[in-house]
Amino acid sequence: MTKPIAKEAITNLYRNTFPASLAIADLGCSSGPNTLYAVSELVKAVDEVRRKLGHQSPEYQVLLNDLPGNDFNAIFKSLVGFHEDMRKQMGDGFGPCFFAGVPGSFFGRLFQRKSLNFVYSSCGVMWLSQVPEGLEDNKGSICMVGKSPPSVVKAYYRQFQMDFSLFLKCRSEEVVAGGRMVLNIFSRKSEDPSSKECCYIWDLLSVALNEMVVEGIIEEEKCDSFNIPLYTPSPLEVESIVEKEGSFTIDLLDVSQFNWNAYDDEVHQSEAFKDGGYNVAKSLRAVAEPMLVSHFGEAIIDEVFSRLGEIVNRKSEEKTEIVIVTASMTRKG
Amino acid sequence: MTKPIAKEAITNLYRNTFPASLAIADLGCSSGPNTLYAVSELVKAVDEVRRKLGHQSPEYQVLLNDLPGNDFNAIFKSLVGFHEDMRKQMGDGFGPCFFAGVPGSFFGRLFQRKSLNFVYSSCGVMWLSQVPEGLEDNKGSICMVGKSPPSVVKAYYRQFQMDFSLFLKCRSEEVVAGGRMVLNIFSRKSEDPSSKECCYIWDLLSVALNEMVVEGIIEEEKCDSFNIPLYTPSPLEVESIVEKEGSFTIDLLDVSQFNWNAYDDEVHQSEAFKDGGYNVAKSLRAVAEPMLVSHFGEAIIDEVFSRLGEIVNRKSEEKTEIVIVTASMTRKG
Repeated sequence: MTKPIAKEAITNLYRNTFPASLAIADLGCSSGPNTLYAVSELVKAVDEVRRKLGHQSPEYQVLLNDLPGNDFNAIFKSLVGFHEDMRKQMGDGFGPCFFAGVPGSFFGRLFQRKSLNFVYSSCGVMWLSQVPEGLEDNKGSICMVGKSPPSVVKAYYRQFQMDFSLFLKCRSEEVVAGGRMVLNIFSRKSEDPSSKECCYIWDLLSVALNEMVVEGIIEEEKCDSFNIPLYTPSPLEVESIVEKEGSFTIDLLDVSQFNWNAYDDEVHQSEAFKDGGYNVAKSLRAVAEPMLVSHFGEAIIDEVFSRLGEIVNRKSEEKTEIVIVTASMTRKG
Repeated sequence: MTKPIAKEAITNLYRNTFPASLAIADLGCSSGPNTLYAVSELVKAVDEVRRKLGHQSPEYQVLLNDLPGNDFNAIFKSLVGFHEDMRKQMGDGFGPCFFAGVPGSFFGRLFQRKSLNFVYSSCGVMWLSQVPEGLEDNKGSICMVGKSPPSVVKAYYRQFQMDFSLFLKCRSEEVVAGGRMVLNIFSRKSEDPSSKECCYIWDLLSVALNEMVVEGIIEEEKCDSFNIPLYTPSPLEVESIVEKEGSFTIDLLDVSQFNWNAYDDEVHQSEAFKDGGYNVAKSLRAVAEPMLVSHFGEAIIDEVFSRLGEIVNRKSEEKTEIVIVTASMTRKG
């Protein structure tokens, strides 16, 4: 997504320190065909530089983290083919490259003290460690939206502030001085945390669920007690929390924009992408399904996302955008 | 099995170096109710010493290794309960203790250079990286047995020598100077590699398979081409390969004896353990089933082990023993 920034950060790190061993952690790596993509791009970028400079390859230690429920078995099985591909692409001088799976929440310590050179996390850190307390007045919505009362907005922000500070503190213990960290975080351009751009797509999911409440398919109480543990901070909020925590210096804050509906991006103008509602629903389903299943059960899921697709198409004049802030930082000291 | 030796090695290591961070690798950890047992005993032993001495707890990094087909997901899910148990047993001063899963063969590098303080492997290292070449004259047997020609014995030993040397070389790069390694290896007392004690139980498995060939259930060719990649070295052979490779000093070589049939051990004299054949077949099945399935398919497996049980009972005057050598060593330098 915002690869060039991460590549630049890791190649700078390499040029400045020429480490014999380079430990890279991917936090919230997930499992699927793209799991190893980011890490392999980072490793390739370093290898390109070291070849140009005529250096020996460092040893790479790749640490793949996600919650214990993630399918690490699938990742590990895919590594055999991955190693072969890398060897073919990069030649004999490359590596070795060691992989490990690290199960656990990144809102706690995961790695040994001062054992990481580079941390990467793509679209993980805006998820909160828990649904904040104090959302009783947010009935009818599943996240922070324009009509949410100030107490709800405050509860969400407080939780994010605590979680993100804890995230930074844990990483500060694990990353060596001068080590780098690049985070992609769902964000917003407006400083107003309940502005439409943060949660528009989630709000449409609320609409789908509320329709189903009205039709008696979902109990109202069940729907009212469902809230998404998500806060989309503004770039300024990210910056201020990093500064306040104090362990990292921000080298770069970059804001970019993507679309839940791939068809709205110019590169995807083929017929296959034309059902915008379906595309958006599918993208969101990949992210939201586990949360919905654990709260509402399996049975209603197809219905929820089919309705979401229709709702998106009804509102087709509005683009369903995601804003992403990329924060590239260096461990002080 | 031979825990006290491993515990002594790790507590000695701790007393001599007081590391702030202690990285322990379990090679061939498998997955099941006992996977975390050895590691937890090691960690507890260190914690007992550090409490007696009034020291702060080191950070533990536990690295669980097995082949990529191992069920790491199951291990990772069990870690939540494990962490809670450890905290209850050891109190607040303990840890932190970080876990990672490391998929891959231990006949290659798995970890970063000089990143391990302690390596443990229980009953893994006698498995060969492959079935040796040159076993054409071993028809009718599935491993090295008394009647195997010298060429077969030599082929097995050569493979073990290569594999174990490579294992030591890889570990020598990963273990810090002064770091310790404790290996439990299926072994034999006799210096004769085809003596009965090494392979008696496997030889009985040959008998079962050959019966099935005679009855036309298994094709003769299929059976002839099946060989187990296993070599049970004598303690002297282990010692001589370690010395020749040169990276480790042997601190202790200990030989102990166990029984495939738990009923023959004094501690297990209850009625439940009385069907010796069944017990032996069950123990061996846990080890051998994947190899048999991949060669012969699923369909014949129950029959093979039921016959094995009967054969063991027919030969009930002979105890089905396992000899295990425990090699405790220190990384030189």
